Amino acid sequence: MTTPHATLHVELGTRRYPILIGHHILSDQLIALLQQSLPHHGRNILVMSNPTVAAHYMEPVLQALQKADKDYRVQHVLIPDGESYKNLATYSDVMDVLVKHRFDRDCVIIALGGGVVGDLAGFVAATWQRGVQCVQIPTTLLAQVDSSVGGKTAVNHPGGKNLIGAFHQPAAVLIDTDVLTTLPQRELGAGIAEVIKYGVMADAAFFQWLQKNIQRLLDKDAEALAYAIHTSCAIKARVVAADETEQGQRALLNLGHTFGHAIEAATQYTSWLHGEAVATGMVMAARLSCLRGFIGTTYRDAIIELIAQAQLPIAPPAAMDIDTWLDLMSRDKKVKDGTMRFILPTGPGAAGIFSNVTQAELTAVITESVTRS
Amino acid sequence: MTTPHATLHVELGTRRYPILIGHHILSDQLIALLQQSLPHHGRNILVMSNPTVAAHYMEPVLQALQKADKDYRVQHVLIPDGESYKNLATYSDVMDVLVKHRFDRDCVIIALGGGVVGDLAGFVAATWQRGVQCVQIPTTLLAQVDSSVGGKTAVNHPGGKNLIGAFHQPAAVLIDTDVLTTLPQRELGAGIAEVIKYGVMADAAFFQWLQKNIQRLLDKDAEALAYAIHTSCAIKARVVAADETEQGQRALLNLGHTFGHAIEAATQYTSWLHGEAVATGMVMAARLSCLRGFIGTTYRDAIIELIAQAQLPIAPPAAMDIDTWLDLMSRDKKVKDGTMRFILPTGPGAAGIFSNVTQAELTAVITESVTRS
Repeated sequence: MTTPHATLHVELGTRRYPILIGHHILSDQLIALLQQSLPHHGRNILVMSNPTVAAHYMEPVLQALQKADKDYRVQHVLIPDGESYKNLATYSDVMDVLVKHRFDRDCVIIALGGGVVGDLAGFVAATWQRGVQCVQIPTTLLAQVDSSVGGKTAVNHPGGKNLIGAFHQPAAVLIDTDVLTTLPQRELGAGIAEVIKYGVMADAAFFQWLQKNIQRLLDKDAEALAYAIHTSCAIKARVVAADETEQGQRALLNLGHTFGHAIEAATQYTSWLHGEAVATGMVMAARLSCLRGFIGTTYRDAIIELIAQAQLPIAPPAAMDIDTWLDLMSRDKKVKDGTMRFILPTGPGAAGIFSNVTQAELTAVITESVTRS
Repeated sequence: MTTPHATLHVELGTRRYPILIGHHILSDQLIALLQQSLPHHGRNILVMSNPTVAAHYMEPVLQALQKADKDYRVQHVLIPDGESYKNLATYSDVMDVLVKHRFDRDCVIIALGGGVVGDLAGFVAATWQRGVQCVQIPTTLLAQVDSSVGGKTAVNHPGGKNLIGAFHQPAAVLIDTDVLTTLPQRELGAGIAEVIKYGVMADAAFFQWLQKNIQRLLDKDAEALAYAIHTSCAIKARVVAADETEQGQRALLNLGHTFGHAIEAATQYTSWLHGEAVATGMVMAARLSCLRGFIGTTYRDAIIELIAQAQLPIAPPAAMDIDTWLDLMSRDKKVKDGTMRFILPTGPGAAGIFSNVTQAELTAVITESVTRS
């Protein structure tokens, strides 16, 4: 269903960039990219990663860089694992490295890792000397289908996730499906949650494919994963090209995220993975949508069942009371002038943005989600 | 030579924005802007300023905001005076204020001050929730003719000035020429240096006007200042519209800055004002240009004389040796893969970018600048 090497493009005019999906990307394709495709760049290259990913993949990447051009001056920094390190302090440390090694405007930042590394490296690239080139090499399924594509970069603030950041499109995204072989099963599941999101919000046929093939994804079937990644990235690339800075339809990609972010915040970003919180958030969005009559119980239950089959959580923490929910959801970046906005499925492969949700409706959905799940 | 209220535009397609120049801008025009012209914005407004400027102008701005809409939720923060506070620590403090008061994506950041406040406020606006609207109200001549227009935002790093930043265009620039009445004479001079720069790099007729009217500017003649500001902003707006992110000709605006930044760095950004360093940098650029045969001695001396008449320094610190110069200039953001680039006048109202300057030429220019000036 997919060729070994497929290339999508995010169509942003002069800032158009490729998403390469395939095997052995880390070596061959990285070299080809640097030698041929990347807009003019200098010799200074910084590879950002974390200890877990670096143990597997730093060496091949450094070797590829050496092979591409022996004159490259390559530095690398490792960011400790975990969302709590995606902050201004770590950001400042990385800037110190760039200053120390006199990186100039023609340098390249390579993000080799999951969402934390990608978001942080992207924000570094966005703001070093007012913006330098960034190559994303995502090593988790979630980063491959979501965070590495589209130019959202950020660090967290103690007051909220991703509050500080910038839109800065990468120069290229290299997705090597081989790296998923070393991905822990729980992180794979978190990525599948975002894959399901694309089916719910934008592609009814893909949703049906997922209903039939969810076990193959959980079993890390290479062909199924490649197809799911390609389909997900194609949807994301289309949405980003149409609305780069989220003035409108790009917000649909946040299906499940208003509820999900509240769960993550309530549990201090420790016990729930982002994808797990989004999975439960999608269940709650489906329930809210059904409550409002946008979708019927059959489709609602199909969404919930697919998420459950993916072994993802479908019930939020029972300990969260309504005041906690309202407080945390009101901090969401989608809030406009104090009004919360929800992305709700409106039918197979379709979703909309709604800002007139009442507290009574939210209370009903939260209660239903805790007790019925 | 100018109408009381003139409006220029920086033509950037959908991100086109106005530069309003005139009297009483702080009150009437700010209200009109917020009520009518600013793209949709919410109620949260942050005014950033410094103690010196705030003592004169914070109250009128806060009153104007109150008058514009009593439902605005206005916060203000004061940044201590001085370039040394334009850093990541101050930036982080301002982010804390935005988090604390739950500023959302529809908020507006107002920069009321000189270059330090404008650059920092601009970087906050560029990176708060991936970018919010910023209104620049520059209160120094230098900020009015240069830093408030064009979307360059930044903070300093101990290793270099403006190393961390982003391109983020303001939503509007309000230039109230009345505020210059309270500007110290030395700061006025620093602004005049950037005004002279526009004449040298882009407008021979304006250069001639400056030769005749430099004393009127030093005397704060309102009409002369308004004309100089309008002409300078018109040139800057045109250059920025043609090359927003400095891929090419925008670099010409850095005439005098490669030498100037080195002087600022060598003197720890304390004893020389930015404009003063740029003034001397332009003298050195003129000498280098003459040495290379791009311009003759008559025009070179005309540039030096105009700068001297503006009571600006024309000689760099004698204590800077060639190694210090080379070390500091090699850290400049215009460096490409280790090669320094110089903006040199190539004739009246014209300048070019040159990267093949030899160490021997630089040594000659530095020696000449110290001894002949």
